Amino acid sequence: MTASDYFAIYKIDLNCDLGEGAALDSEIIPLISSANIACGFHAGNCSLMHKTVEMCAKNGVALGAHPGYPDRENFGRTAMDCTDEQIYDYMMYQLGALSAFASAQGVSLQHVKPHGALYNTAGKNIEVARAVVRAVRDFDSSLILLALSGSKMIEAAEEYGVKYACEVFADRAYEADGSLRQRGLEGAMITDENEAIERVVRMVKEGKVKAYTGEDIVVRADSVCVHGDGQKALDFVKALNEAFVENKIKIMPLGK
Amino acid sequence: MTASDYFAIYKIDLNCDLGEGAALDSEIIPLISSANIACGFHAGNCSLMHKTVEMCAKNGVALGAHPGYPDRENFGRTAMDCTDEQIYDYMMYQLGALSAFASAQGVSLQHVKPHGALYNTAGKNIEVARAVVRAVRDFDSSLILLALSGSKMIEAAEEYGVKYACEVFADRAYEADGSLRQRGLEGAMITDENEAIERVVRMVKEGKVKAYTGEDIVVRADSVCVHGDGQKALDFVKALNEAFVENKIKIMPLGK
Amino acid sequence: MTASDYFAIYKIDLNCDLGEGAALDSEIIPLISSANIACGFHAGNCSLMHKTVEMCAKNGVALGAHPGYPDRENFGRTAMDCTDEQIYDYMMYQLGALSAFASAQGVSLQHVKPHGALYNTAGKNIEVARAVVRAVRDFDSSLILLALSGSKMIEAAEEYGVKYACEVFADRAYEADGSLRQRGLEGAMITDENEAIERVVRMVKEGKVKAYTGEDIVVRADSVCVHGDGQKALDFVKALNEAFVENKIKIMPLGK
Amino acid sequence: MTASDYFAIYKIDLNCDLGEGAALDSEIIPLISSANIACGFHAGNCSLMHKTVEMCAKNGVALGAHPGYPDRENFGRTAMDCTDEQIYDYMMYQLGALSAFASAQGVSLQHVKPHGALYNTAGKNIEVARAVVRAVRDFDSSLILLALSGSKMIEAAEEYGVKYACEVFADRAYEADGSLRQRGLEGAMITDENEAIERVVRMVKEGKVKAYTGEDIVVRADSVCVHGDGQKALDFVKALNEAFVENKIKIMPLGK
Repeated sequence: MTASDYFAIYKIDLNCDLGEGAALDSEIIPLISSANIACGFHAGNCSLMHKTVEMCAKNGVALGAHPGYPDRENFGRTAMDCTDEQIYDYMMYQLGALSAFASAQGVSLQHVKPHGALYNTAGKNIEVARAVVRAVRDFDSSLILLALSGSKMIEAAEEYGVKYACEVFADRAYEADGSLRQRGLEGAMITDENEAIERVVRMVKEGKVKAYTGEDIVVRADSVCVHGDGQKALDFVKALNEAFVENKIKIMPLGK
Repeated sequence: MTASDYFAIYKIDLNCDLGEGAALDSEIIPLISSANIACGFHAGNCSLMHKTVEMCAKNGVALGAHPGYPDRENFGRTAMDCTDEQIYDYMMYQLGALSAFASAQGVSLQHVKPHGALYNTAGKNIEVARAVVRAVRDFDSSLILLALSGSKMIEAAEEYGVKYACEVFADRAYEADGSLRQRGLEGAMITDENEAIERVVRMVKEGKVKAYTGEDIVVRADSVCVHGDGQKALDFVKALNEAFVENKIKIMPLGK
Repeated sequence: MTASDYFAIYKIDLNCDLGEGAALDSEIIPLISSANIACGFHAGNCSLMHKTVEMCAKNGVALGAHPGYPDRENFGRTAMDCTDEQIYDYMMYQLGALSAFASAQGVSLQHVKPHGALYNTAGKNIEVARAVVRAVRDFDSSLILLALSGSKMIEAAEEYGVKYACEVFADRAYEADGSLRQRGLEGAMITDENEAIERVVRMVKEGKVKAYTGEDIVVRADSVCVHGDGQKALDFVKALNEAFVENKIKIMPLGK
Repeated sequence: MTASDYFAIYKIDLNCDLGEGAALDSEIIPLISSANIACGFHAGNCSLMHKTVEMCAKNGVALGAHPGYPDRENFGRTAMDCTDEQIYDYMMYQLGALSAFASAQGVSLQHVKPHGALYNTAGKNIEVARAVVRAVRDFDSSLILLALSGSKMIEAAEEYGVKYACEVFADRAYEADGSLRQRGLEGAMITDENEAIERVVRMVKEGKVKAYTGEDIVVRADSVCVHGDGQKALDFVKALNEAFVENKIKIMPLGK
């Protein structure tokens, strides 16, 4: 029995960052439903974009742009004090570049998920979030913005009437207010694999997760972000796939 | 009387490379009909692409992509021994990126003119030329390839059924076989402004130019390449505009 | 009579940013005493660094590194939220790269002046300033840090025992506390050429300048920052050179 | 018994490319004697350079620069048609940048090994080889050039009196003339681990290797190039270390 032919009650999207130069992209692709593809600003290059789009299309994985700050030096992880116009232009450039590879192969983009420091800044700063969302809308108003539940990006998407989906994280603790517990703080990472899987399954089935402070909180889980860099990460995604089958959760792209 | 309201018998396109960081772009734009806009690989950036597209759209100047090798270090002037797949991917990426800025502003691209070493290599090497043309076709089969008359790019465009236009140069000498006399050789550059203007007018009106070796040769002049970097270049384009009015030559974009 | 053979009572250094791709570098070099040479992160390239070092060495202009953030996209003008380690490493890399060109030509660096957003951030943030200064000290403890009078960079240089020099600006208004009046505010720029020259001469001779709010303030003027991009800027530097001769002010590098 | 305390009869250097972003750098470093550190042009960044220098220094691994073409898009594997001046300047810049990190940590560079397409081009083209060697000499005439035995780089090093060392490859077949059998041809790669180890041991002890065509040829083996990207590569280097102990071959940096 494969993940696609059982009778599912729940559905979820699994998204993963790809085309950033990690060695195991071809192994993770069959296990996910949505790909966030680096567009050359923080990582990736033309050849990787071409090949990653191709592999995703062959495996029925939905395509998304993963635009970042123009910061190869630090993999897009450095916050930059950009104007709204710069943010808009960085988005536009990268959306266009990736989209060209998709349309040349007869497929189209499903979603957009900003990368690294841009994801974080746009999650907290409404002006940056609006610049991101305006670019998505002006480029292709049918695209889905993939962002953290409760973030400013979701707020901006609602303002502009842009479709969005909320992502949850399997390996991160949540604060009582629904925000991610900051990396570096005690207990910020969920390191036990079984616990991580149980949390994800509950977020999908019940829309709830236990916060770091102990109480249950409500989360909207349209998509789960998984990692594919390294054998351990890959093994986790395999285990997650199996747990989903057992729990009658079907993995499907956002747009379906 | 302006250049647009007299009774013209001939027509010509004037193209210029823009968005490469030169200071006088805003002054040259009203004097030309087609812009070749740098796409960030050899020069330019997101902000310049946005602004240059905007200025061109306001002035009715047709938009073209000016893709180059990924070589900011030497302004795209270094030949790179790339595979056909790389050439295709470099083209695709840059076409997509520029096109996003155009479509977000409600305009579309008219043409594509490769830059620097890519222009030269694709002009002489049929495999590189084919990779360039395949990318243009796969990205948007209605685009016009702008290339040197008699070059391999024209040959490849004919093979693939891609529209093309031939450009001539005001400031370069021609060999008897129609090729440009190589820079660095004696007499390669036409330095006398009046002579340059006379040559251009004759190429447009008669389709002929005197080769370096003295005989008349046939050239197809759909577009004249002019430069806009520096006051002297700008003055030349102004003088050329005036000479066109006198000679009943109308400046019009390629696609019209 | 040239600027170097009259009997001078005062001395001043004139510094200018070079190797950033401006067309008039060769014309400004004979008019200044210290060059801040871009190191490839925000602008410049290997060839420009080589040539600029060469031109400066021939003209007896002292060499300085002009390191910036790794931000070609916006010419190093975007503040980046870097760790102290990153700042240190960016400095170290660029100091090493420029220094190689100098030592290969038998000359050595005199000073270091951070560029753009790095100059501004290090001027206000003591941690960033310390990272900058530690890099200068660890690279070559005989180098002079060139920075804004009263800035955090000067404070950090004093802490670490690194030599420093204070620069003043001919074209900027000062607030009563000695800081530069922020660009964009009314009266931030001194646009009248004669007024700018008078202010500079007074800063050199008296160590005083009239603040925006009208009162005289004390400034330490070891070096005046001038611009060389564009004919107007060049003309100003020529006029400044003449005013210095009249006022018995001799232009000399910092280190002398 | 460790590799350093047995009675050795032979000695060899083991070199490996580092600081290119591979995950296992910290595991390979204790197993080698010389590191070729990427300088930011084809791969690597300031932070990686700093950390890699630090790890090597702690482990007593000799430091070398690994300069490449300015080609992050294709990891320095694309041949570029550069002038000799450009090659010289690319070398100088990268040598300076890496050297700064070394000297700030109180160590100095031992050698220089060009990367990828630059290694190959300089190995075959005497003009490029001379530009490489001139840069090494002008930067620091005590550095050792590490290059393929019999290559043009060795020839140029002899011309200029620059020290050099010859490297051999464990995983590549040799032609009868001593050149490497071109990748892609049948039998170009030695895939059997035991065979590869036996060949290396014989090259070190006897200075001979069996060519693809069957006859023994003479090779000068000052250094063996090994790879550290991936667990399999790492396992090979461990096995090679063990085989060296058994064969009384001591691993030592070039300069000792």
